[in-house]
Amino acid sequence: MNVYNEQRISPTSIGGGQIRYKRIPNHIGVIPDGNRRWAVERGMEKKEGYYYGISPGFQLYEICSEIGVKELTMYGFTVDNTKRPAAQKEAFQRACVDAVMDLVGRNAELLVVGNTESPCFPRELIPYTNRVKFGDGRIKVNFLVNYGWDWDLNQKDWPASKDISRIDLIIRWGGRRRLSGFLPLQSVYADIYVLDELWPDFLPEQFYRALNWYQTQDTTLGG
Amino acid sequence: MNVYNEQRISPTSIGGGQIRYKRIPNHIGVIPDGNRRWAVERGMEKKEGYYYGISPGFQLYEICSEIGVKELTMYGFTVDNTKRPAAQKEAFQRACVDAVMDLVGRNAELLVVGNTESPCFPRELIPYTNRVKFGDGRIKVNFLVNYGWDWDLNQKDWPASKDISRIDLIIRWGGRRRLSGFLPLQSVYADIYVLDELWPDFLPEQFYRALNWYQTQDTTLGG
Repeated sequence: MNVYNEQRISPTSIGGGQIRYKRIPNHIGVIPDGNRRWAVERGMEKKEGYYYGISPGFQLYEICSEIGVKELTMYGFTVDNTKRPAAQKEAFQRACVDAVMDLVGRNAELLVVGNTESPCFPRELIPYTNRVKFGDGRIKVNFLVNYGWDWDLNQKDWPASKDISRIDLIIRWGGRRRLSGFLPLQSVYADIYVLDELWPDFLPEQFYRALNWYQTQDTTLGG
Repeated sequence: MNVYNEQRISPTSIGGGQIRYKRIPNHIGVIPDGNRRWAVERGMEKKEGYYYGISPGFQLYEICSEIGVKELTMYGFTVDNTKRPAAQKEAFQRACVDAVMDLVGRNAELLVVGNTESPCFPRELIPYTNRVKFGDGRIKVNFLVNYGWDWDLNQKDWPASKDISRIDLIIRWGGRRRLSGFLPLQSVYADIYVLDELWPDFLPEQFYRALNWYQTQDTTLGG
């Protein structure tokens, strides 16, 4: 049932390309939670935390691209999130736009999925609601922006997220053990790994911890 | 954000009704995994494990009923599971029928949800595919039997599981950190607690461990 559990890779030995994972997830989903808690812990306003979540996303893109992950989906913000105070809403909208723009022109196939009919959807991201290839397009990167699970499943041609494939591994930062509406159809068989660290405190070691754990999981798909 | 984390209830102090939880989940979902691994560890055939999963289900029903949980959903078997060897398939079908029949006539409102059009659906359970009230019906108990997440979402009048409400807490036995296709729509905001113990080794203390953890979680629903 589980052919991988003899293998444990030490995160400290990562680097220089000498590590070969037996199992690289084709598709990794990321729930980058904890921006507001991180800001409050530092005496900042909650809204200030989102800015510090941009650089971690870019680092993660680089690592995934390097080790051969085929698709990466980032949970940007949801329709539910837009009920938060206006200052926070503006801050996470800005952070999402900046995160996407950071990747424009790099080696990636970009796609933004979310409800474009609402004023909460940033206009700058409209060009990426159909997948756009940059460079050698070696990795698909999807951002959920003004996304709602019920919106996703209630379109005439559903799911609205049909260009996003099934997810193998979901990594959630910030300690909560839940999906919070993240792509319910693509997540049905995903292994879920929760890190207690808050997203702005991202370190590559945290990602490798999740990947090491993933080596030990089987994939029966119910069979 | 989190008003409950000062409260830790010792599982050893449970009993006699003196414990008052601040948060009782309205609806608990249960993924009772590990029957086959449990059997193999004891030198039994895999199929023999399912029999030992019946009594734990009944114990859990009694505890949930007593503490005031309003709805309990048990993951019986899935369409994917029916690809397993015939002897295993017959064993888990039998165990599901016995588990449901154990509750017939007790205080519960029973509902069985699954694809009845397949020969894998046990005929004995057809009467319960519409909810049936027994006694004072104090708790809704749902069994997923020959269930498939894609079947659920691809009916004309979807979801097929529309009589099952949103889930607050999912408890999975057997160590896997995934949903395995369990009610994707009802699980979108559920807190997920994974126990390493295998399902046939069920003890009430394990359930209380999950419930204690649940006390410490917030419920923002994205807001």
